[in-house]
Amino acid sequence: MKLLDLYAKMKGDLNQIEQELERSVSDDHALLREASTHLLKAGGKRIRPVLVLLSGKFGDYRLERLKSVAVPLELIHMASLVHDDVIDDAETRRGQLTVKSKWDNRIAMYTGDYIHGKALSIATQLPNPDIHRILSKALVQMCIGEMEQIRDFFNTDQSVRHYLLRIRRKTALLVAISCQLGALAAGADRETSNKLYRYGYNVGMTFQIRDDLLDLYGTEKQIGKPPGSDIRQGNITLPVILALRDERVREPLLKEIGSIRSQDGFPDTKRAISLIRSSEGGNLADELANQYIKKALHALEGLPDIAAKKNLVDIAHFVGKRNY
Amino acid sequence: MKLLDLYAKMKGDLNQIEQELERSVSDDHALLREASTHLLKAGGKRIRPVLVLLSGKFGDYRLERLKSVAVPLELIHMASLVHDDVIDDAETRRGQLTVKSKWDNRIAMYTGDYIHGKALSIATQLPNPDIHRILSKALVQMCIGEMEQIRDFFNTDQSVRHYLLRIRRKTALLVAISCQLGALAAGADRETSNKLYRYGYNVGMTFQIRDDLLDLYGTEKQIGKPPGSDIRQGNITLPVILALRDERVREPLLKEIGSIRSQDGFPDTKRAISLIRSSEGGNLADELANQYIKKALHALEGLPDIAAKKNLVDIAHFVGKRNY
Repeated sequence: MKLLDLYAKMKGDLNQIEQELERSVSDDHALLREASTHLLKAGGKRIRPVLVLLSGKFGDYRLERLKSVAVPLELIHMASLVHDDVIDDAETRRGQLTVKSKWDNRIAMYTGDYIHGKALSIATQLPNPDIHRILSKALVQMCIGEMEQIRDFFNTDQSVRHYLLRIRRKTALLVAISCQLGALAAGADRETSNKLYRYGYNVGMTFQIRDDLLDLYGTEKQIGKPPGSDIRQGNITLPVILALRDERVREPLLKEIGSIRSQDGFPDTKRAISLIRSSEGGNLADELANQYIKKALHALEGLPDIAAKKNLVDIAHFVGKRNY
Repeated sequence: MKLLDLYAKMKGDLNQIEQELERSVSDDHALLREASTHLLKAGGKRIRPVLVLLSGKFGDYRLERLKSVAVPLELIHMASLVHDDVIDDAETRRGQLTVKSKWDNRIAMYTGDYIHGKALSIATQLPNPDIHRILSKALVQMCIGEMEQIRDFFNTDQSVRHYLLRIRRKTALLVAISCQLGALAAGADRETSNKLYRYGYNVGMTFQIRDDLLDLYGTEKQIGKPPGSDIRQGNITLPVILALRDERVREPLLKEIGSIRSQDGFPDTKRAISLIRSSEGGNLADELANQYIKKALHALEGLPDIAAKKNLVDIAHFVGKRNY
């Protein structure tokens, strides 16, 4: 089944989640409502809610309960985007003005705080302390990941392991717990929810590696913005770390990165990108992404052969596919 | 009993909370640890933990359980200070460099996020979903209060009611739930926890009104920084709102506030302060603070006459006392 067909099939339940998302940020305060709804309207693939719903199929599927984890997970993701935009000084996201450019950094900071709080407060509608615990712990880890990313800006000495640990916190964990909490909210047993956690974790890792590759190998049309925005802001991603291991590329690339770092405004990243592309960095990162997909598929083994399992397999293949 | 004696009496339990506070922010990540510990070392009166412990005396007092709400409440207060300092552009707090001046705004933003997450995750150690719900809802309300404060900067048309609603969210709510959650964590009945909530709410309102008065009527030595910092950043507090009702003062004060608003850097607030002091604003605000203290004391009626009740009465009187 194609991914679009899957969305079509799940449309009814996803719409309900969408309505709940809107409701969740629209009942409190005019400015926050405007800032959050604005963000909500910018859309997104709602991949976390999709994973919650599919994982819920491995237990007693009840939309009311699943909503109470799907909405918080998507909200936490949205809050991280708002705070990211403060850090990245981003003016637009998905073609819409960001909260920080439409209002200012202070509003963006409190919008993020508000959405975090709202997310956790919605989850507490479920009388399941385990779910609250998993969610708030993930929030802590995500913050650590975000801080690490700032600290590691322009750090050309970082290891692959270091990068992987960072994206684990920054991205993979929230995807992992989307699957885990979907299963738990549906009352699935611990073995099932653990398998789904591992599936989500590995899909999340692949997703971030693919996203980092896209920023260096995609066209402006594919990315939606000029390539190289990661390296421009100092975010040293996997293909760069691997390219720096290539003796022919290392010295000139270090020089380019140093030059990007020293420039204000919008430094040209063309030469850096072409150096990276001339190395083996992309292929090696690609291989690693494929390994994570294998692990994701492996994690599903032993789960009952229901339609949702096939859907999760399709999603893994879709996320794992080269998109440039 | 004097307040110092009360702290002396509670020293053992407060020390354990202090250790837990330190532990809570020191096990994750070097930079966050440094930023948070730095904040922790700046100290504070730990009034929220004190109220948790005293409220816990109205139930089955068990420090282990009370710690799991006292630490999150103090952490949420700390996180709000970190994010406040971003907004206020504050370089120091309680004589120490702020997180945002020692590192930068981005680190301050994520330190606040991290501490929020950590707070909620510690509270989830108690298997009591009600407590999680109350805590996360308070976080949402606090964010709204903070946003309102930004939106209301230099708004000289606000009503007293509007001001009271804002400080309710910004300050009083967290004090109120400190009492409520202390009681709930100790298994006290709902009537007791509701009474304590009302006590805390009214003490919190008084505290904020007193704090706002101090900033206008205190000396630099009493405040720890030059007076008038609220009005300098555009925060229109109760005495100002009331002074603006005074026909002799209104026009020149509006002019002064306009002039403060138009200046960069560190505008002189001397004339504005002397205008406010020449009005009835201070006395009227004072009266309102006293009314809240009366309500706080009234809320305690019907609670058993244990030592903790007497301590709460003392705290109310202390908070209600003129401090300038």
